[in-house]
Amino acid sequence: MGTKNRQVLLAERPKGMPDDSTFKFVETEVPEPKDGEVLVRALYLSVDPYMRGRMSAAKSYVEPFEVGKALIGGVVGKVVKSNDPNFIEGDYVTGMLKWADYTAAKGKHLQKIDPDVAPITTALYVTGMPGLTAYFGLLDIGKPQAGETVVVSGAAGAVGMVVGQIAKLKGCRVVGIAGSDEKIAYLKNELGFDEVINYKTTKNIREDLKAACPKGIDVYFDNVGGEITDAVLSLLNFHARVALCGQIAHYNDTEIEKGPRVLPYLLTRSVLLKGFIVSNYDDQAEEGVKQLAEWLREGKIKYKETIYEGLENAPNAFLGLFRGDNLGKMLVKIADDK
Amino acid sequence: MGTKNRQVLLAERPKGMPDDSTFKFVETEVPEPKDGEVLVRALYLSVDPYMRGRMSAAKSYVEPFEVGKALIGGVVGKVVKSNDPNFIEGDYVTGMLKWADYTAAKGKHLQKIDPDVAPITTALYVTGMPGLTAYFGLLDIGKPQAGETVVVSGAAGAVGMVVGQIAKLKGCRVVGIAGSDEKIAYLKNELGFDEVINYKTTKNIREDLKAACPKGIDVYFDNVGGEITDAVLSLLNFHARVALCGQIAHYNDTEIEKGPRVLPYLLTRSVLLKGFIVSNYDDQAEEGVKQLAEWLREGKIKYKETIYEGLENAPNAFLGLFRGDNLGKMLVKIADDK
Repeated sequence: MGTKNRQVLLAERPKGMPDDSTFKFVETEVPEPKDGEVLVRALYLSVDPYMRGRMSAAKSYVEPFEVGKALIGGVVGKVVKSNDPNFIEGDYVTGMLKWADYTAAKGKHLQKIDPDVAPITTALYVTGMPGLTAYFGLLDIGKPQAGETVVVSGAAGAVGMVVGQIAKLKGCRVVGIAGSDEKIAYLKNELGFDEVINYKTTKNIREDLKAACPKGIDVYFDNVGGEITDAVLSLLNFHARVALCGQIAHYNDTEIEKGPRVLPYLLTRSVLLKGFIVSNYDDQAEEGVKQLAEWLREGKIKYKETIYEGLENAPNAFLGLFRGDNLGKMLVKIADDK
Repeated sequence: MGTKNRQVLLAERPKGMPDDSTFKFVETEVPEPKDGEVLVRALYLSVDPYMRGRMSAAKSYVEPFEVGKALIGGVVGKVVKSNDPNFIEGDYVTGMLKWADYTAAKGKHLQKIDPDVAPITTALYVTGMPGLTAYFGLLDIGKPQAGETVVVSGAAGAVGMVVGQIAKLKGCRVVGIAGSDEKIAYLKNELGFDEVINYKTTKNIREDLKAACPKGIDVYFDNVGGEITDAVLSLLNFHARVALCGQIAHYNDTEIEKGPRVLPYLLTRSVLLKGFIVSNYDDQAEEGVKQLAEWLREGKIKYKETIYEGLENAPNAFLGLFRGDNLGKMLVKIADDK
């Protein structure tokens, strides 16, 4: 090709909050796809909080990233060369690919995207991993019933905004927790959330939650942990359900933080709490994607993106997740689609 | 009757650990049973940790006890007079009755006991509330599979000893946590627990648990909370289940204690945790009693009692629960069966 192939490597495992020393940029040759492989030019990278977990050496539900190798995440791109008969040049695809301009990937690890259905980037969230996370966590664990009150933290993020909209579709009162007036306005005015609390400016989050949830809280979809979650758990109704999806407040902790003990609350209200990761639902993913795509087409699920420009800004976009910089899905645009 | 009827009243709501000022003894007339009522002479009282919750004014899953009125708990007694055609003098019965020598209760609130099946006191635990608590919490929430490792705290108590034995019947490795060498010897030698850890003498409960559970922990039945539970939760396997039954470490807390945050553990291992109370399973109670009675008859579930003598010792027996004085079910004998 003659063009350069920039990559972002994990330079070293971060202790606490990642910073510039966590990442390393290199330029390599554009790889040559082998038999059965497809060369993909990245157009957009997805940056997601769960990637912080993979930067640590500790075993978790996914393998740690390797130091000195490219970071891997959700990517939307375009096929530039195909040695797999199922793909042709010009196809839009998504998959778990390198943080790089180009990746040679096996065709079976890629999914095609139809650009006529919705913007191709939505495959990275509404009908991708964050959307499925919202779908299964809310419906399988939260089991919201019409008339119940659903609270979602990280409400303006890629997962949270879908959670809230599905809960509205199910006839629930939906209360979000988010960190800026702009996010709150969007969630209330565009997505139809009943109430949204600004956790950065509230004087007493528990009191604000209590006022926003006069009938108590039946379902809590937790993306954040920490003091926000402490407040929510103290207001749960009998037989409430907690879908434990993320704990972004703790991903950069270097030791286990102390907080008020929550198990007594969960005991006395017969609460069900379930930690999960979207891959627990791999065998039902097809059904989930189908439903989400239908809601997307029908305009029942709306969406918002925050886009950083250029691979060089991918680390900053990632760090922005922990600052709450994103309204909607955080993406990095790598190349123009031409 | 001419006899006295002693009663134990709630004198005042305890702040923190109950003490002598919590209880008040009075003598009243023996009540006269009305139409449809049965006069029961108490033989044994059940003292149970959950009663601490009812001593507080805070609303919980059961109504608070009323100050100035008799405490109410599980009782085994004998019918001395019956105005209900379903009962005759001499019947052994159990029900939720006053901490008193005599209670006049509606017949429909009493269950008959067959003294030929097992000692009548076992109706207060193996086939009563604690046994059903163990049965439903372990089987419905814990869902133990053969070969899995089940940990139970408060293992030598009325609930814990049944939990461990059912888990053994299901083919699990069973590790208990208890507070004396006598309890440990009983659980290992008589009930067949694989390992039991003495939380009062261990130098490092997490290390001891790790050694006792070389394949990690799949099911945790929690009766206690606090630091014991912190250690267990840090050793859970992917897809582990936690049946949250009791938090005796916290029942006398006057403010919410701080401890290490546990939700990140529950998230990364996709753990299911469910608080429960036995009345959640009222519609299946009959099935549970039947199975427990069968195991009891077959000798598959063994049992142990710690009996305090005399109604005057009921408060002390209750306080003994928090000291861990009981090996097996804590009971108070009120009268000879004659």
